Amino acid sequence: MNWFAVSVVVALLAFATAAWLYLWVSKQASGTKKVQEISGLIREGARVFLNREYRLLAAFVLVVAVLILLFLPEPIWHGTPQRNIVMALAYIAGSVFSGLAGKIGMNIATIANSRTATAAVDSMEKSFMIGFRGGAVMGMAVVGASLLGVTGIVMLTGDVAMTLGFSFGASSLALFAKAGGGIFTKTADIAADLVGKVELDIPEDDPRNPAVIADNVGDNVGDVAGMGADLFDSHVASLSAAVVLAVALDGGIGKFTQMVFCFGAIGLLSSILGVLVARISKGADPTAALNKLTYITTGVYVVLTGIATLSFGFDWRYWAAAMLGLGVGVIIGIATDFFTNDQRKPVQQVAEASQSGPAFTMLSGMSYGFLSVFPALVGIAVSALGAFLITNGIDPTSITDALFGISIAAVGMLSIVGMIISNDAYGPIVDNARGLVEMGGLGEKALRITDDLDSAGNTVKAITKGFAISAAGLTVIALLGAFLSEANDVLSARGLELITGFDVMNPLVFFGLIVGSAVPAVFSAMLMLGVNRNAERMVDEIHRQFEEIPGLKEGKPNAKPDYARCIDIATTGALKELIPAGLMAILVTLAVGFIGGVTAIGGYLAGNIVSGLLLALFMSNSGGLWDNAKKYVEAGNLGGKGSAAHKAAVVGDTVGDPFKDTAGPSINTQITVVSLVSSLAAGLFILFSIF
Amino acid sequence: MNWFAVSVVVALLAFATAAWLYLWVSKQASGTKKVQEISGLIREGARVFLNREYRLLAAFVLVVAVLILLFLPEPIWHGTPQRNIVMALAYIAGSVFSGLAGKIGMNIATIANSRTATAAVDSMEKSFMIGFRGGAVMGMAVVGASLLGVTGIVMLTGDVAMTLGFSFGASSLALFAKAGGGIFTKTADIAADLVGKVELDIPEDDPRNPAVIADNVGDNVGDVAGMGADLFDSHVASLSAAVVLAVALDGGIGKFTQMVFCFGAIGLLSSILGVLVARISKGADPTAALNKLTYITTGVYVVLTGIATLSFGFDWRYWAAAMLGLGVGVIIGIATDFFTNDQRKPVQQVAEASQSGPAFTMLSGMSYGFLSVFPALVGIAVSALGAFLITNGIDPTSITDALFGISIAAVGMLSIVGMIISNDAYGPIVDNARGLVEMGGLGEKALRITDDLDSAGNTVKAITKGFAISAAGLTVIALLGAFLSEANDVLSARGLELITGFDVMNPLVFFGLIVGSAVPAVFSAMLMLGVNRNAERMVDEIHRQFEEIPGLKEGKPNAKPDYARCIDIATTGALKELIPAGLMAILVTLAVGFIGGVTAIGGYLAGNIVSGLLLALFMSNSGGLWDNAKKYVEAGNLGGKGSAAHKAAVVGDTVGDPFKDTAGPSINTQITVVSLVSSLAAGLFILFSIF
Repeated sequence: MNWFAVSVVVALLAFATAAWLYLWVSKQASGTKKVQEISGLIREGARVFLNREYRLLAAFVLVVAVLILLFLPEPIWHGTPQRNIVMALAYIAGSVFSGLAGKIGMNIATIANSRTATAAVDSMEKSFMIGFRGGAVMGMAVVGASLLGVTGIVMLTGDVAMTLGFSFGASSLALFAKAGGGIFTKTADIAADLVGKVELDIPEDDPRNPAVIADNVGDNVGDVAGMGADLFDSHVASLSAAVVLAVALDGGIGKFTQMVFCFGAIGLLSSILGVLVARISKGADPTAALNKLTYITTGVYVVLTGIATLSFGFDWRYWAAAMLGLGVGVIIGIATDFFTNDQRKPVQQVAEASQSGPAFTMLSGMSYGFLSVFPALVGIAVSALGAFLITNGIDPTSITDALFGISIAAVGMLSIVGMIISNDAYGPIVDNARGLVEMGGLGEKALRITDDLDSAGNTVKAITKGFAISAAGLTVIALLGAFLSEANDVLSARGLELITGFDVMNPLVFFGLIVGSAVPAVFSAMLMLGVNRNAERMVDEIHRQFEEIPGLKEGKPNAKPDYARCIDIATTGALKELIPAGLMAILVTLAVGFIGGVTAIGGYLAGNIVSGLLLALFMSNSGGLWDNAKKYVEAGNLGGKGSAAHKAAVVGDTVGDPFKDTAGPSINTQITVVSLVSSLAAGLFILFSIF
Repeated sequence: MNWFAVSVVVALLAFATAAWLYLWVSKQASGTKKVQEISGLIREGARVFLNREYRLLAAFVLVVAVLILLFLPEPIWHGTPQRNIVMALAYIAGSVFSGLAGKIGMNIATIANSRTATAAVDSMEKSFMIGFRGGAVMGMAVVGASLLGVTGIVMLTGDVAMTLGFSFGASSLALFAKAGGGIFTKTADIAADLVGKVELDIPEDDPRNPAVIADNVGDNVGDVAGMGADLFDSHVASLSAAVVLAVALDGGIGKFTQMVFCFGAIGLLSSILGVLVARISKGADPTAALNKLTYITTGVYVVLTGIATLSFGFDWRYWAAAMLGLGVGVIIGIATDFFTNDQRKPVQQVAEASQSGPAFTMLSGMSYGFLSVFPALVGIAVSALGAFLITNGIDPTSITDALFGISIAAVGMLSIVGMIISNDAYGPIVDNARGLVEMGGLGEKALRITDDLDSAGNTVKAITKGFAISAAGLTVIALLGAFLSEANDVLSARGLELITGFDVMNPLVFFGLIVGSAVPAVFSAMLMLGVNRNAERMVDEIHRQFEEIPGLKEGKPNAKPDYARCIDIATTGALKELIPAGLMAILVTLAVGFIGGVTAIGGYLAGNIVSGLLLALFMSNSGGLWDNAKKYVEAGNLGGKGSAAHKAAVVGDTVGDPFKDTAGPSINTQITVVSLVSSLAAGLFILFSIF
């Protein structure tokens, strides 16, 4: 069986599914004039942001493409110019694919929101289906594009190193999409909440609040486009790392390479099936419905990959590694749920601690956030070690077989990502729909229904986020293996001694390890300070509007807030803040590489992975926990809205917002970018480093 | 020259200096009856806590001593029983020395506080001298005990591995003293502030507040006894690691070993000189006076070690490594000052952000905290790499020469620790004195003077804390080398293949790396949750007293709060919370060792060091920053006391308290304990691990 061809077919099938879902969602009733008008504002705001962001990123991508042309995989005057040209093109393709997937997802999300809101007037089931299918468009588009891109590059060039260029394109766009979108969304969210809920005590989506449209735009640019770019990046990276290692093992394109595409294609196929069978029965729990789909997809994947392994004579040990990755991913998801679910002790204890004031909200929330990293990190460690031990010895001459095993575990963990994205994008759609119901005055029943749907979105989101970080963790371990493989290719081409590993007792490795561990901390600090600065600007603007626009505070019909001004502030600020953080990560990597060479970079990547995973899990989980602690209080516990506990919980939620939606998930992408920069520049480091 | 004998003489000189200072302080006027009474309450509370803590720790130490007797350095039925007996005794000696040093320091601190307060009625200069000399007693006692202990063990047993047992004794006591004292002090501080300042709007040290004595006791048990144990531990560990590596290099006790004791003795001698020349001229700035002493000590050390190197023919490259360590330590101190000094941008920006509410205090403070790790981590990385490169090649047959170079850099960084401790212990003494001035009604002038002295203490403390963490960082890198050396001793004795290093591409190493990185996060979370729980209990108690004791709130003369009850709550809670966190760290280490053997432990230690340093620096610095942001507002900026910015800044300070005084500095000790457990149990891991 030619699994390259199968991958292309399955990818096209995913696009067809996306197109069908897109049309289905578009055909639904788009609601009252008021709803259409507000939805139009959101769509327009999102479009403007994305266009401005993409224009800026296009310039960045071009500059990097020229640098790649000149220097990568080797300086153009050393190696073969064709490889440099192809690498630059692969890089551009990766960023364009990522941008397109984000654009499509955002488009459908801003169409689906009004339709989900309108359907909620009549029926929860219909409303749920529109929200889910809207999200599924994104899921199908992202994973289809990833599989098609990687397969296409390998088929067209026959040079698997080029997939790293494609992956770098995807991840450099993701870095900025996630960071930029994350800054935008939290700027708007924090500012809207601070003035609206805390100062003026008006409801969450009150149309008087000038930041309310920006807040809804933010859900789309951060949680849809940004998250899509993030998972596109992880999926591409996992495939690329696996392919690079497979080719090293095969000594060319062979059976192991075929297996990567086989497992990748089956993963997407399982997600397509999962999306197509999605139904919800009358009065059912939407959270359970979403989780059921994940389990169905997982089950189909397990069975189909088992059948494929049997039929096509793949090594069962690699199948076992994939299953281990997938299983640990599910377990980590469940552990994340424990720390962020309001039915459990951590959230309830943080809510209770809030009764003593915001300092206790912070302390207890951060403490549980730190505790929550343990199961996830141990899970990642166990799956990497397990995959290694299971698959070591398949090729007795090197450890590439076992590194490939780890990469297959990552592919396994990410196999169901099509379904994960669908569930994840469902969140912001129903969140937006809830806003439209409130702003459009669609009534109590619709509000209750969209509230329920929104809450399901939040629960699922926390789980999938833990899943996504862990998958990224396993992927970058595989990328570390890919880096070693790339570095040795260059070394052997120049007749230099090969590297066998990175010994922490080697001072260059240790130097890299420590510097690498500092980067995620600095990176996330820069993003959070960006949100901080930007939100303060926006708070000032909201205050100005409430003061200067007569009748706005009282809600007189003719007093219209200037929504566009707030969107503009969020956009300009986000774009201004996103570049320095991303550049810092790339420049420190280059500095370490040119000082300490590939040896130092090995340690640097290990340090970056370790501290990056730690901080990303800490931030995502404590952010999710604070969000739900606030919701727990708002549900009427511990005095409910307006109580001291509520005020403190709102502070926790405000701190948690940039944690979980800006810094935390961006760290993921930062790790991937740094790993890929290292792999790509390995040749340069070998030629030009000081030590 | 026999540097062993010199070390003993210098240590005795330090004790003599301590005794003279002790007598001088005791002879000062102890003040009014009221001041004596309150000071007596503080002393009594501190005594009760320390006795109860030491009783608990004695049981712990005995259990561990029995385990050492049975299993370390090798199971008693494998090795030579004498070594196990000596090791157990060395362990007990380490913990007893540490406990004694803490006890002496605390004793003088609770004598000096009333005398400092009383002197402040007349003169700043006198008050300063009493505070400083009180602190210097602690500095002299701690470093004298460390030098005497390590020298004594080597002289008596001739077996340098035994210094690791002594060091383990010191660090296991430090772990609990720091954690227990840290929980105690922050329980009291947070509870006193929350009810006193925030709810009732009464001044900091108002005698009506039932927690106020516990708060002052806390300064002593946390910042004096705990901090002393912490730095005792670091100093012992740096000497032990250096001695173990020196003997490996010398092939027995020889020139390199002599050099360690030479440099150690000169460090203590320089601190003695620094302490003895301490003066402050009329109206001078106390911060400048303290810093001047540090510079004098540093200068003397540089010159004397240079002369010693010249005269006794030590290798200049090791002198250079020591200077590099010392220089980087000073630079890190200055960088820490940048992030925590209220004259600088970070503190002022956090104070300004506080105007928008506590969420912004938190976000900006944590962001600067994350940024602040960068210079310190890069400094540690550069000094380790630099020391390695300078000294590599002295012995061409192995890298032990260069690992020894790193350990000498750590010895250099810690050389002036006698002065650092003196400055550091000055802080809580003048802080206590300030409280006594307020509670004893000693007047406006005395209050102003002690306020100035207290503020100098806070500034110096932030710098020394950054210094201490960095020194611990360098020490544990040296301990990693000591671990490798110990493991190879066991391996070579059994005729097994030696380990050359810990390759992160080895899955066992990577497994260890990831699990090791999670431990400091979990450890600090457990401590902070302990503070949280305990402070909530105490807040309830304060509320109860204000409600049930008639006239207390109004400050009627006959209404006396029940101080003892608050001290009791803090004590019981601290002791209850400190054990699980410490045990967790030790048990996870043993689990990783018995699963993955010494290979996994190598990665585990590296991961633990990296994430431990990151979190310790983050917590210490952001805590110090919040403290000073609050003080900056209280000094009248941005609306001053009672403003919105002040309320928010108080929340930041409350969160920062357990960061900087409980979790942050305890992580230091956690890293050392884990490193020592690993070194000591290396033989067991080799015999009994699964992989």
